[in-house]
Amino acid sequence: MYFHTQQLINEIAVDQPDPAAANALQEGLGGQFGEMRTMMQYLFQSINFRGKAKPYHDLIHAVAVEEISHVELIGTTISRLLDGASESLPKMGAGKGGTPLKNALSEGNIHHFLVGAQGAMPVDAAGNPWLGSYVYNSGNLTLDLLYNLMLESTGRLQKCRIYEMTDNATARSTISFLIVRDHAHELVFAKALESLGVNWGKILPIPNFDATQFPEVRKLMDTGLHLQQHHWRLDGSEMAKIFSGSSPANDGATVETSDSPPTGFPMQPAPERPEEFGPGLPPELKELVDQIAAMGENI
Amino acid sequence: MYFHTQQLINEIAVDQPDPAAANALQEGLGGQFGEMRTMMQYLFQSINFRGKAKPYHDLIHAVAVEEISHVELIGTTISRLLDGASESLPKMGAGKGGTPLKNALSEGNIHHFLVGAQGAMPVDAAGNPWLGSYVYNSGNLTLDLLYNLMLESTGRLQKCRIYEMTDNATARSTISFLIVRDHAHELVFAKALESLGVNWGKILPIPNFDATQFPEVRKLMDTGLHLQQHHWRLDGSEMAKIFSGSSPANDGATVETSDSPPTGFPMQPAPERPEEFGPGLPPELKELVDQIAAMGENI
Amino acid sequence: MYFHTQQLINEIAVDQPDPAAANALQEGLGGQFGEMRTMMQYLFQSINFRGKAKPYHDLIHAVAVEEISHVELIGTTISRLLDGASESLPKMGAGKGGTPLKNALSEGNIHHFLVGAQGAMPVDAAGNPWLGSYVYNSGNLTLDLLYNLMLESTGRLQKCRIYEMTDNATARSTISFLIVRDHAHELVFAKALESLGVNWGKILPIPNFDATQFPEVRKLMDTGLHLQQHHWRLDGSEMAKIFSGSSPANDGATVETSDSPPTGFPMQPAPERPEEFGPGLPPELKELVDQIAAMGENI
Amino acid sequence: MYFHTQQLINEIAVDQPDPAAANALQEGLGGQFGEMRTMMQYLFQSINFRGKAKPYHDLIHAVAVEEISHVELIGTTISRLLDGASESLPKMGAGKGGTPLKNALSEGNIHHFLVGAQGAMPVDAAGNPWLGSYVYNSGNLTLDLLYNLMLESTGRLQKCRIYEMTDNATARSTISFLIVRDHAHELVFAKALESLGVNWGKILPIPNFDATQFPEVRKLMDTGLHLQQHHWRLDGSEMAKIFSGSSPANDGATVETSDSPPTGFPMQPAPERPEEFGPGLPPELKELVDQIAAMGENI
Amino acid sequence: MYFHTQQLINEIAVDQPDPAAANALQEGLGGQFGEMRTMMQYLFQSINFRGKAKPYHDLIHAVAVEEISHVELIGTTISRLLDGASESLPKMGAGKGGTPLKNALSEGNIHHFLVGAQGAMPVDAAGNPWLGSYVYNSGNLTLDLLYNLMLESTGRLQKCRIYEMTDNATARSTISFLIVRDHAHELVFAKALESLGVNWGKILPIPNFDATQFPEVRKLMDTGLHLQQHHWRLDGSEMAKIFSGSSPANDGATVETSDSPPTGFPMQPAPERPEEFGPGLPPELKELVDQIAAMGENI
Amino acid sequence: MYFHTQQLINEIAVDQPDPAAANALQEGLGGQFGEMRTMMQYLFQSINFRGKAKPYHDLIHAVAVEEISHVELIGTTISRLLDGASESLPKMGAGKGGTPLKNALSEGNIHHFLVGAQGAMPVDAAGNPWLGSYVYNSGNLTLDLLYNLMLESTGRLQKCRIYEMTDNATARSTISFLIVRDHAHELVFAKALESLGVNWGKILPIPNFDATQFPEVRKLMDTGLHLQQHHWRLDGSEMAKIFSGSSPANDGATVETSDSPPTGFPMQPAPERPEEFGPGLPPELKELVDQIAAMGENI
Repeated sequence: MYFHTQQLINEIAVDQPDPAAANALQEGLGGQFGEMRTMMQYLFQSINFRGKAKPYHDLIHAVAVEEISHVELIGTTISRLLDGASESLPKMGAGKGGTPLKNALSEGNIHHFLVGAQGAMPVDAAGNPWLGSYVYNSGNLTLDLLYNLMLESTGRLQKCRIYEMTDNATARSTISFLIVRDHAHELVFAKALESLGVNWGKILPIPNFDATQFPEVRKLMDTGLHLQQHHWRLDGSEMAKIFSGSSPANDGATVETSDSPPTGFPMQPAPERPEEFGPGLPPELKELVDQIAAMGENI
Repeated sequence: MYFHTQQLINEIAVDQPDPAAANALQEGLGGQFGEMRTMMQYLFQSINFRGKAKPYHDLIHAVAVEEISHVELIGTTISRLLDGASESLPKMGAGKGGTPLKNALSEGNIHHFLVGAQGAMPVDAAGNPWLGSYVYNSGNLTLDLLYNLMLESTGRLQKCRIYEMTDNATARSTISFLIVRDHAHELVFAKALESLGVNWGKILPIPNFDATQFPEVRKLMDTGLHLQQHHWRLDGSEMAKIFSGSSPANDGATVETSDSPPTGFPMQPAPERPEEFGPGLPPELKELVDQIAAMGENI
Repeated sequence: MYFHTQQLINEIAVDQPDPAAANALQEGLGGQFGEMRTMMQYLFQSINFRGKAKPYHDLIHAVAVEEISHVELIGTTISRLLDGASESLPKMGAGKGGTPLKNALSEGNIHHFLVGAQGAMPVDAAGNPWLGSYVYNSGNLTLDLLYNLMLESTGRLQKCRIYEMTDNATARSTISFLIVRDHAHELVFAKALESLGVNWGKILPIPNFDATQFPEVRKLMDTGLHLQQHHWRLDGSEMAKIFSGSSPANDGATVETSDSPPTGFPMQPAPERPEEFGPGLPPELKELVDQIAAMGENI
Repeated sequence: MYFHTQQLINEIAVDQPDPAAANALQEGLGGQFGEMRTMMQYLFQSINFRGKAKPYHDLIHAVAVEEISHVELIGTTISRLLDGASESLPKMGAGKGGTPLKNALSEGNIHHFLVGAQGAMPVDAAGNPWLGSYVYNSGNLTLDLLYNLMLESTGRLQKCRIYEMTDNATARSTISFLIVRDHAHELVFAKALESLGVNWGKILPIPNFDATQFPEVRKLMDTGLHLQQHHWRLDGSEMAKIFSGSSPANDGATVETSDSPPTGFPMQPAPERPEEFGPGLPPELKELVDQIAAMGENI
Repeated sequence: MYFHTQQLINEIAVDQPDPAAANALQEGLGGQFGEMRTMMQYLFQSINFRGKAKPYHDLIHAVAVEEISHVELIGTTISRLLDGASESLPKMGAGKGGTPLKNALSEGNIHHFLVGAQGAMPVDAAGNPWLGSYVYNSGNLTLDLLYNLMLESTGRLQKCRIYEMTDNATARSTISFLIVRDHAHELVFAKALESLGVNWGKILPIPNFDATQFPEVRKLMDTGLHLQQHHWRLDGSEMAKIFSGSSPANDGATVETSDSPPTGFPMQPAPERPEEFGPGLPPELKELVDQIAAMGENI
Repeated sequence: MYFHTQQLINEIAVDQPDPAAANALQEGLGGQFGEMRTMMQYLFQSINFRGKAKPYHDLIHAVAVEEISHVELIGTTISRLLDGASESLPKMGAGKGGTPLKNALSEGNIHHFLVGAQGAMPVDAAGNPWLGSYVYNSGNLTLDLLYNLMLESTGRLQKCRIYEMTDNATARSTISFLIVRDHAHELVFAKALESLGVNWGKILPIPNFDATQFPEVRKLMDTGLHLQQHHWRLDGSEMAKIFSGSSPANDGATVETSDSPPTGFPMQPAPERPEEFGPGLPPELKELVDQIAAMGENI
């Protein structure tokens, strides 16, 4: 069973709307190697897990649960990058037939303005809808771990490329966080394979470059965020039996399973967008809604 | 941020393997109107929610979180229905080239045995992979609620049909639970629309028939399970401002938002399936894994 | 603008339900070379037609309009083949939790019983949904005509194969009619290409065999149904300028454009299927509906 | 059986070519909530209709037939918006290897110039092909009507957004007409559900805003176009038993079923586009075609 | 540039037609981890290869070229398994309207008989068409090699499962050959990663079991077929710089790059199938064709 | 069995990077009528060929093999058009967090920079992945030949349109070559149908215009490249029995089957792209690779 607290797993920096950057981030949400895919892949691997090797199950599932929070984070980031990318409503003008959404014709994915109301969608940066056949779960433990390592590495590679596409601070705050967490997840799966006898030599992390040349990433790596993994369980986990001790990157660092969840960050409500008819209630219905919102709880 | 406890939201009854029933249940997991879709649709609606009507946001999100546990439940159920549907390994025989998986050619979805290792997959009962374009999130509050009502009703309709396709107890224990919870979710979204002024007359629930004619469903409805909704938040929710008081079905019943999560049920590890090479470790690697599993925690 | 009369373009013979045959016929409805595709392809070619060669436009559009009636015919046929394929309701039994839909697990496409209510769907015989990218409209007149000839020939080929898969009279009455009409449509497009200078020698129709060896087909060919094409226009057409005179099959036959629509056949309402919850109204709502149905018209 | 008259259901205003606007309109043609989808959904619901409630069947089918004319209208509009968006042929120049189609690289959907010949396609505004799985036909009458109401409302929402993206007069003349007709169709399905006991309060139409602030829409609403529905039958219909009397929007208006089709508008042939090789006949073949076109009819 | 000799890369054993086995083999041809995918993935990786590490390029490309021959082999095998699965023509009977293709309704993929003429198709065992998004080519050398190792291992895993589904000798002769070649390809990519410093310990091959318990596989492994790789170049290759010496499986074996292609096996023409209209020429056209076939070459 | 020589089938001219042109060329590679499709379609038709008409088999297969080299050519061309389209690395700057890939947000397909490393992908110009259902192989010889003729004509039509979209010399050198080869392939299939009795009159080639108005095309046609077809077999072919003598275009030209392969052109290695992490090895691993590359062959 799953539970939620109303906090984001990382803080989203404030910057201008940027629908083209929002579209690039869609790859990290709904792309073949994005967060929806890691989330669903690890959920299915956990559900279908075979055998008594509970520490391996718990290790895969720990990452699965974290990915749901990543979907929440990157989805919210895309929504903020889109919000206000239309022109302001006054330009539209009552009774005048203006074109407040005309930007939609030339930037990013037109569906962000036409199908959604300036919000995230389950598609990739080229507009392809997410596909169930992305999910890999062979049932062979070695193969599933190997695929997961490759998957996290590809996710990190793509996010490094997105980093190089935009310097919008809203986009970069989330992308940098995910570069570091994908790094941690690479180590998680590499360590599990190390426990089966593989020595990774010097190939980790993949891509193997000095990510601290990205200033926003450096700040996070300086806190050791790439070396830790919380288990996201309210009732304990056995993953620490695997994920602890020397890093599988063979660089002298130490990895550790943390028993405490990271500090969260408050979620902000998004404003109304009348030009999108979102939420789009007429005055008399909005009044009903406001009355309900103003009630004491648990009436 | 999301958390997990190692419990299932309902108990799964024990019965014989049944790959044809497993395949029918795939519609409830990976179908256009299945649990993956409700989960993702409500997650996106929560992430992209606009305006200050927090009780409406919390109401949608409450169902979203529950759906993750439904994915876990129905996925596990499918896995159990498949497990052991192959012939036993001895028939295969070392060095003899037997055909322990020959049933895969004639029953259910061959991918359950060929791509997965007798486990659930993100596809529907006709084998189509889950598709991101299923997710509906117009950003217009009235429309999103109306769609959600229709979605839950269709989910319940399809599960009633699945109920009529198989009397396997494993399948029915989960299908019956979901029929009742879809019923509750219909009432959740109908109540929200009622708060905007709609009177549903006598059309609810949809399909509108006496579901207690299904004995397994009756047992659950007798406990009032179709009239309650927990918010699945560790830090509170405002959904009770909407979901409380008279049922929108206009039948004299009372609905309520519950502050306590339901009792969970223990999760059982699935056995090894050598004929699927799942987990498929050779003896020397299995020994390594067993040593790790036997360690004290948090080494 | 389009209009309708409540008649089927051919009569559907009565026979037993047969979900496997229904599934085979889905190829003729929603397959890559089925009626939905011919209908949409010719509609798009008509809409996007360039140049002053109106007889060519009218010729393509004549077939387009006929195809809508073919979709209606084959869809209705599939619906009849499915209807009653479930076990009768009494076996299900009030309060007893029976399995009237259990046949759905082993025959044809389970979606016919689970997603639809024993009705036709826009999918092919392998369950793939119809796809917009099937539609071919290059805008080059020669190529569009050449593709259309190939398309009709492939449709006819596949229907001849379906004929050889089942002798259910319901299925065969429609399949035989469509074999003959695809034959006519082959001649329509071949004649248009002949007007551009092509001599088809002896290759028509494709596949080139004696279709009168299929008795139900022979009966229709004996009436010359494969040599005529109505224009389906209430306000005239210029297609006769092309489609008249000697057959492009070079077999001595004469083709003609008919100014009168063929005689239609009455449409029969389908019965209720309580086990599918279709239409699924509870008694009190059914009473409301019956009152409306009993009213004089135009109240 | 279906018939056609050579008239458009609304007039298309003349304006400059605009491939970006054409692309936006594709959502209204081939999108998940566009005219191809409503057309196919209602056709399937009509074909598979169960039970004796003929007025409900006729009501659904009336909208189905109108949607075929909408496909014709919006397809033609897209074709006109594209036509001439390439540079004129002289810039290309015989023997000089010019680039008359270079605009295709930077505006709208490149397929409009590369796969089609500046004509409409069965895809949405993000280039995804139309998909059969869009069609919803559960067979449960209440659910099908509820879905249809949601579908028309979403169609109207999206068209209102497209209206705000472009002020090209060609695009707006069709979009405004469809906004008003979707409004009417919302009332049609809402009225049918009202007949089953639902009171819609004040939520209709969805999105609920003053659409007369769009001048082109106001002009059409002033004629009451949003309150009428023709049945498109040459042999009568029973839909008036449902669709007549007070509007389900509870605003004092009256809705009515009309027995006469609306006045149509003449269809214009599109010019040749040599740079697209459309129709692309060489001089000697064009001469053959011209001779045929010049013949008296019915030779 | 590519060339061909009219030989199969392995011999196909003779056995009875078996459409269900044919369908299982489709996963190995058109599935996500089948031969079409490995072929296309390695071709793209070769085309887009960056940097001067030619031995790595040549190693990837060597496998790419072999995979084209694997597509040829498994496609031909499927075709042979299907051939004759229909009933013999006499049962159909001239003028009698028999059903020689009725088996198509109940076994394997109906498209094998309806869309194809008892021949292989580019789809998987669940009927999903092959998809371009399967192809992985990140451009990062480490990642591409890691993915390729995982891909070959998954291919081998699936083929081992198919082996356990059928003992048809035609199917097994090809499946066993591919199990052994996937084994070799695992070693090829593992060796390349070893050259970058990875020590695979004891996890190879994946799945790690004694494949010689499959008698048909043992026979091939006894020849060392799993330890060799030819480069398929008419003008030399540098792959031997990587693929030679000790096996990356750390089992004491030696791998080697072979400069000579393996011995091929003759290709057999498939018989005519009149009930499929394949090739389906009428007598007078068949006579023309026979005359051409009887001509001396190079007329 | 297939073999390779390290040569391109045509020379690629040098010009500036141009991602928009690269994207247009994707239609010719991964589009519905592109080279991947012709290659796979003819391979499947060859594998599944029925009957003794070997010259027809060899004719289809000759084109199949050539198409593999076309995939190699156009893929390499796309890769060159993309290469360097990002800004140079110094702009990115170590430790400075630059945006060398920012062009990816506004030109062509963002996946070229985000999913691939400035390399070709198996998608079309609108970003849709290649689909197995494109492949047509009815098994009826007349139909397969007719489809192939239409396919080559459509390929040539689309390439003529791409020619008119860009004058980048890299793009045009390959597009012009493919226009001429598609022309030849049209004649190949038209000639085969002529041998069955069809007289094509004056409709060939399609589109029927003076392609020598494109200067790059004229240069190639002046060599007669559109009238020849090599068989790409190391062990002979019977296709010359069909493809020789007068052109089926009835223009007095003569077509011929050539026994010698055309002269090839050297392949150039692509440079490293650090901003894409391609190949992306860190210095110490690059050193290992360089040592291997420097070895004598066949160590």
